[in-house]
Amino acid sequence: MSGTARIGVTGLAVMGRNLARNFARNGFTVAVHNRTASRTDALVEEFGDEGTFVAAHTPEEFVAALERPRRLVIMVKAGRPTDAVIGEFAPLLEEGDVIIDGGNAHFEDTRRRERELRELGIHFVGAGISGGEEGALNGPSIMPGGSAESYASLEPLLEKIAAQAKDGTPCTAHIGPDGAGHFVKMVHNGIEYADMQLIAEAYDLLRSVGGYSPTQIADVFRTWNTGRLDSYLIEITAEVLAHTDAATGAPFVDIVQDRAEQKGTGRWTVQIALDLGVPVSGIAEAVFARSLSGHADLREAARGLPGPAPEPLKGAEAAAFADRVEQALYASKVVSYTQGFHQIRAGSEAYDWGIDPGAVAAIWRAGCIIRAAFLDRIRAAYDTRPDLVSLLSDEEFGREIGAAQDDWRSVVAEAVRQGVPTPGFAAALAYYDGLRAERLPAALTQGQRDFFGAHTYRRTDREGSFHTLWGGDRSEVGAG
Amino acid sequence: MSGTARIGVTGLAVMGRNLARNFARNGFTVAVHNRTASRTDALVEEFGDEGTFVAAHTPEEFVAALERPRRLVIMVKAGRPTDAVIGEFAPLLEEGDVIIDGGNAHFEDTRRRERELRELGIHFVGAGISGGEEGALNGPSIMPGGSAESYASLEPLLEKIAAQAKDGTPCTAHIGPDGAGHFVKMVHNGIEYADMQLIAEAYDLLRSVGGYSPTQIADVFRTWNTGRLDSYLIEITAEVLAHTDAATGAPFVDIVQDRAEQKGTGRWTVQIALDLGVPVSGIAEAVFARSLSGHADLREAARGLPGPAPEPLKGAEAAAFADRVEQALYASKVVSYTQGFHQIRAGSEAYDWGIDPGAVAAIWRAGCIIRAAFLDRIRAAYDTRPDLVSLLSDEEFGREIGAAQDDWRSVVAEAVRQGVPTPGFAAALAYYDGLRAERLPAALTQGQRDFFGAHTYRRTDREGSFHTLWGGDRSEVGAG
Repeated sequence: MSGTARIGVTGLAVMGRNLARNFARNGFTVAVHNRTASRTDALVEEFGDEGTFVAAHTPEEFVAALERPRRLVIMVKAGRPTDAVIGEFAPLLEEGDVIIDGGNAHFEDTRRRERELRELGIHFVGAGISGGEEGALNGPSIMPGGSAESYASLEPLLEKIAAQAKDGTPCTAHIGPDGAGHFVKMVHNGIEYADMQLIAEAYDLLRSVGGYSPTQIADVFRTWNTGRLDSYLIEITAEVLAHTDAATGAPFVDIVQDRAEQKGTGRWTVQIALDLGVPVSGIAEAVFARSLSGHADLREAARGLPGPAPEPLKGAEAAAFADRVEQALYASKVVSYTQGFHQIRAGSEAYDWGIDPGAVAAIWRAGCIIRAAFLDRIRAAYDTRPDLVSLLSDEEFGREIGAAQDDWRSVVAEAVRQGVPTPGFAAALAYYDGLRAERLPAALTQGQRDFFGAHTYRRTDREGSFHTLWGGDRSEVGAG
Repeated sequence: MSGTARIGVTGLAVMGRNLARNFARNGFTVAVHNRTASRTDALVEEFGDEGTFVAAHTPEEFVAALERPRRLVIMVKAGRPTDAVIGEFAPLLEEGDVIIDGGNAHFEDTRRRERELRELGIHFVGAGISGGEEGALNGPSIMPGGSAESYASLEPLLEKIAAQAKDGTPCTAHIGPDGAGHFVKMVHNGIEYADMQLIAEAYDLLRSVGGYSPTQIADVFRTWNTGRLDSYLIEITAEVLAHTDAATGAPFVDIVQDRAEQKGTGRWTVQIALDLGVPVSGIAEAVFARSLSGHADLREAARGLPGPAPEPLKGAEAAAFADRVEQALYASKVVSYTQGFHQIRAGSEAYDWGIDPGAVAAIWRAGCIIRAAFLDRIRAAYDTRPDLVSLLSDEEFGREIGAAQDDWRSVVAEAVRQGVPTPGFAAALAYYDGLRAERLPAALTQGQRDFFGAHTYRRTDREGSFHTLWGGDRSEVGAG
């Protein structure tokens, strides 16, 4: 028995519902299913005129409604709920059918599920979807990982519902096998954390050191949004800063509690980067800044610790400060993306995914939270040199950072002097200076490790490992 | 059947061998066992005159040699080898016997093993042991986790073989149940990473900005070692820096490759801190600095990136620079320990371990790699206020940092200006300024999250969660 629906969506909370409507609006017949059937009916009732929906009230009805090979999108919570739904549907499917997990799964879970389902002849696609509710409805950035065969079967549908970059290309591409899509989505979120932290630091500096008001800062961000920082996050920052709280008449940003929350993908990014040996200090500082802000007890205990009170700049210095902060923000942002793309390359190598970083940059150009004009240039950098080991070594980015660095350094130095915390800016700069250093003090670290743990070291002038007899006559012995 | 040995050690690589000798030297009859029996015999032959050893050639012989309840120390590699040895011995043991794992296990593994063995009536003690080969032989710092009953049975032995603090107290204490000991050992290693990174940055600054030679820097470290920085790591840094490479006549530190290696406990510390929501930016930057140094391809690609060439200070400024760096190093070190002890408190709360942080500081005063005079003051801080939420809020540390901060800030600013990477110093300072900030820009972050993901925010003036209808008329709605 075979149905008529090109695709099905099960799990009709807001993301699932919007995704189903997006398929329907684009002319695809969509089977819809939800554990609580009333939600299925409500969707069809409310939005039935947007396209062709097939309401299914049982898993069996749902599966029967789909044309073959079946394409079935699961939009439920990551973790056990996803496993439960897979366990419910897999026995009803046949060889060649495709299950798509559109949630925020950990890529290791996706790898496991793909392996298990492959043994049953079922394709499993872990698809990162970014853009929030609005993106799901009007065009998200979609990062599917799975077999090439399953992608071929999904491509016509995904390309229709995805966001479109300014040049008209859809924001989806086959990222790679098994967990590649969810991995890339994870790094996307890590970069998002870093972007948001850098923006927060820029705002804090403009306010504390620059002496600007929130509405003045909103104007600064609007100006920045017409230049190389043009991006969704800069745009909405201006909106948030320009907003006035109706209840108090105060700037909205001043009535919001300054404790940032997080859902976990930023943390995952850093944890996995540590496993891969990739320094992602910008993302880590962003995650730490959120958790620090939430520790009310520590902050309360630290109140009254000595430190300078910021002395806002005045006159021409204040006016020029925004441009300097823009340079620092931009340079730090380039470093964040350098670290994120390094992680993608390292993940791709570790799991043999063959990810094309230029294609990743291309599909982040629209639909997702970190969408930005800037990504078109990252795409171009990788198109020019597909073997680029670091974004920083791209000629154009290198030149820009060269031009930005005096202001970058002076802004960080000013923040340090005035006691304004800029962990993101400072970490990015330290990464930059670390990478370009001729010699690092890591040689001393190796010497210490050899001293207390006989961990051996390498020499600059000869091959091999060596150990110095620190407890003896301090002669050197070969160590294989 | 019951033997005469008070304790047994299986796994006679260098750490196990030295630990067995330490027991024997302290008057305890020690059963020794190794998979390869020749190693057992070699130990007894070479060191038999140091005490009473019972050489066992099979697991059965080994177990039979132990008095009851049996105490059996496993000194094999963490992970599967440890599980394999436990699986080999557990069937030979009886209720009330005690297995001690003296390796570097992940505390989650220790929790699992403790649970599994408890069901068999066997006590399992995960004991962190720090001090390297030399410490194992002459007195390590020992951090045992497990049941109170098992600790009571081990205490007389551990107190004998442990290092002694200057006041004569042994450097061991019952850390808490199951994984508490290995958890604390892990954080110890994380702090060790941070200490080493901060020392590396101090060295780099003295060399690049201060214009000092390695032997001059060795002298600076020797002087520091007579003051509040008095510690093993400062001491051996002076030794390493004073060492001349015999083959070339060059300073040893200049012939060592500047690529630092790592074994994983630093990485674990950061990964677990992320799970616990504890900002450990100093430890993270230390781990990242090591991995950055090892990425030869990235460093090669970054060669030639623009940046200032350090201009060494001269005359009186150069002479005064060492004192300023000492202030920066000390203040950053206080922050590292603040972060590490925060993680211990958070772990203790999450796993209900009831860890006494003052006791942890006390047993780190001697034997281990981070042993330092400084730890006596941390112990005192917790003894005075057992509920101290942050070391920074201890009166004495707060006063010292207050006095140090001008130099701390000027050193970081100087490093930033001159292009010398100081990720550890800068992260520590940003943490300090973040904690003491009256308002953090996290409020903006929450506003952005509410804008793009309807994640809601809290207000400073009312209880509850709120959401602004950003896509609508921008009025505010309660969100439960």
